Amino acid sequence: MTVSVTRMEDLPHKAADLVTKIREQKPRVHCLMNTVVQKFVADGLSAMGAIPSMTSSVEEVQAFVTKADALVVNLGTLDATRREVIQLALQSANSAEKPWVLDPAHCDYSPLRAAFAQELLTQGLAVLRANEAEYELLDVPENTVAVRTGQQDRISFSENQFVVTNGHPLMAKVTGTGCLSGALIAAFVAVGDDAFQAAAAAMLVIGVAAELATQDASGPGSFEVALLDRLAGISPDDVLKHARVKYEQG
Amino acid sequence: MTVSVTRMEDLPHKAADLVTKIREQKPRVHCLMNTVVQKFVADGLSAMGAIPSMTSSVEEVQAFVTKADALVVNLGTLDATRREVIQLALQSANSAEKPWVLDPAHCDYSPLRAAFAQELLTQGLAVLRANEAEYELLDVPENTVAVRTGQQDRISFSENQFVVTNGHPLMAKVTGTGCLSGALIAAFVAVGDDAFQAAAAAMLVIGVAAELATQDASGPGSFEVALLDRLAGISPDDVLKHARVKYEQG
Amino acid sequence: MTVSVTRMEDLPHKAADLVTKIREQKPRVHCLMNTVVQKFVADGLSAMGAIPSMTSSVEEVQAFVTKADALVVNLGTLDATRREVIQLALQSANSAEKPWVLDPAHCDYSPLRAAFAQELLTQGLAVLRANEAEYELLDVPENTVAVRTGQQDRISFSENQFVVTNGHPLMAKVTGTGCLSGALIAAFVAVGDDAFQAAAAAMLVIGVAAELATQDASGPGSFEVALLDRLAGISPDDVLKHARVKYEQG
Repeated sequence: MTVSVTRMEDLPHKAADLVTKIREQKPRVHCLMNTVVQKFVADGLSAMGAIPSMTSSVEEVQAFVTKADALVVNLGTLDATRREVIQLALQSANSAEKPWVLDPAHCDYSPLRAAFAQELLTQGLAVLRANEAEYELLDVPENTVAVRTGQQDRISFSENQFVVTNGHPLMAKVTGTGCLSGALIAAFVAVGDDAFQAAAAAMLVIGVAAELATQDASGPGSFEVALLDRLAGISPDDVLKHARVKYEQG
Repeated sequence: MTVSVTRMEDLPHKAADLVTKIREQKPRVHCLMNTVVQKFVADGLSAMGAIPSMTSSVEEVQAFVTKADALVVNLGTLDATRREVIQLALQSANSAEKPWVLDPAHCDYSPLRAAFAQELLTQGLAVLRANEAEYELLDVPENTVAVRTGQQDRISFSENQFVVTNGHPLMAKVTGTGCLSGALIAAFVAVGDDAFQAAAAAMLVIGVAAELATQDASGPGSFEVALLDRLAGISPDDVLKHARVKYEQG
Repeated sequence: MTVSVTRMEDLPHKAADLVTKIREQKPRVHCLMNTVVQKFVADGLSAMGAIPSMTSSVEEVQAFVTKADALVVNLGTLDATRREVIQLALQSANSAEKPWVLDPAHCDYSPLRAAFAQELLTQGLAVLRANEAEYELLDVPENTVAVRTGQQDRISFSENQFVVTNGHPLMAKVTGTGCLSGALIAAFVAVGDDAFQAAAAAMLVIGVAAELATQDASGPGSFEVALLDRLAGISPDDVLKHARVKYEQG
């Protein structure tokens, strides 16, 4: 996965292009996802135009990763078996040079999980997605493409950073919007040629979709429904029209 | 489970009758379901008027199958434990002559899963439900009632076939509509006297409900919600009015 | 957890106060929840203003319970590992004097589950939540705060009982509303000073939210969405205005 840092001012156009590409190429995203949000993440990927799979058995995970274009490893469900499955999946992904995204969900709750996340950070990931508390806890290697989500989303690579201010507080009220972000980043990276821009583009598209979704929402329940509708319906023009992102260097 | 092939032109009336029977008899359907879609399938069964259960532990599965009127075995979640649970469940179902439906979800992704599905095909199932890719991979014994879902749904038994053209492309955007079909087939077979007609009736009812659901849908999120509402609200008359099915022989 | 039985006529005011307290204090509720309804329960807790977590691995559960303010133990998913996890979680909860709620989901289906539920009833729970069939099966120790849900909800302690008649039959059509009640009881108990009143308050608030939700519902799908919206939007005044509860003694 190469990362270029030229023409960053073009991110909205890049994001609009990648929306079209996902719908044309229908990338397969295998998800080692926590059990809580599996269906929501699968629905969000499908809505965007990607093809999700979720298998997490030792015997089958490599067959599924081999069929996939990208992988997301979410640590929200984690036991000895899942750790083994993750390592098998990463072997397949790395040997086939398929990009993978790490989401160390709730690693600030459990020292074991934080240690495992730390270990995975050196195993060739394309993108790290974490919230502020999770990110702070980790010793993130330089030259990692890192997405820190929060009131604003910061996507950084070395000295370069995109700051996306799209999005809405209702996202925090729906369990799994962060996990879905990780999976959508994997879909964008699968069709993009630059993990840094693709990750930032994913956050931009999710943020715009979330803002549009609030138009049909009376609370977190209807917001979740509308978010899926908007991920399916968002047009490249919607992205260009509503994008709020700035690029910072150094 | 007997299969008769008389008066096939009556399928819409048969389907309308079975809708009423499900609501009156409230069949219990035990689901060995993939973890991704457990709640959606349970909600869909409840909406239709059936009573779902989902336990998949070795110690408890036989107690649950014993209480159930039908069983659906979905291979979307599959590891050594689940395979053991499936065999225990089939022993209980077969010895009590309770009908069971096989859904070899995603068996085209994993040779192990395909081999296991193949093995189950000889163990006395009432109905096989698969999409085209899954179906093509399997060596389906003659005299199997087979439901192949896709743009149109084909329900076949020996030389006889129903072709249902109800349904909507949005179904493919919601993870678990296929799995739900498998579970609803089990509910219809539980109250029907003919697995072939009951399976076709189930597909007809789901297809009509899906078409009605699009009236309230702006995308896959709202479609999923509307589908549950319509499964709960569908009347025998709705089925008769909207059914599009033809019968083909030999 | 103390239980007082004074000024029971004030329950609606108590419930209204606890709604405000949950939103201010944002109690963390760790859920050992069946896999079917994990996301729905997490979303319901978030909607109400609490912070859910769901981890159920042997290695991590105690770290999560240590971070939590209350615990709910739902037996809907139960195998040898889950039983071990439950015991570890209860050790942490009891030693830190954190309240926990027992929900013996579907224990009427499985003798093993009923026996395990019986064992847990003596281990220091704050509240038992069960439906009528589950409750009847158990030998509930005197001085247990017990919530029996059904057409009307009865919350009892010794000779004292609240009867809540809020609620709606659509709740029974949505898988997990009972499980969510158990989790919300834990949230109310976490911020309350009296487990009996807090449990009754929780049932009152859910019942009122459910009634309000029917205004936006055309069936079980839209009802579920609306219930989450209403849990998020319910005001202390809504509780006072719509509460239907009576107190019985002896």
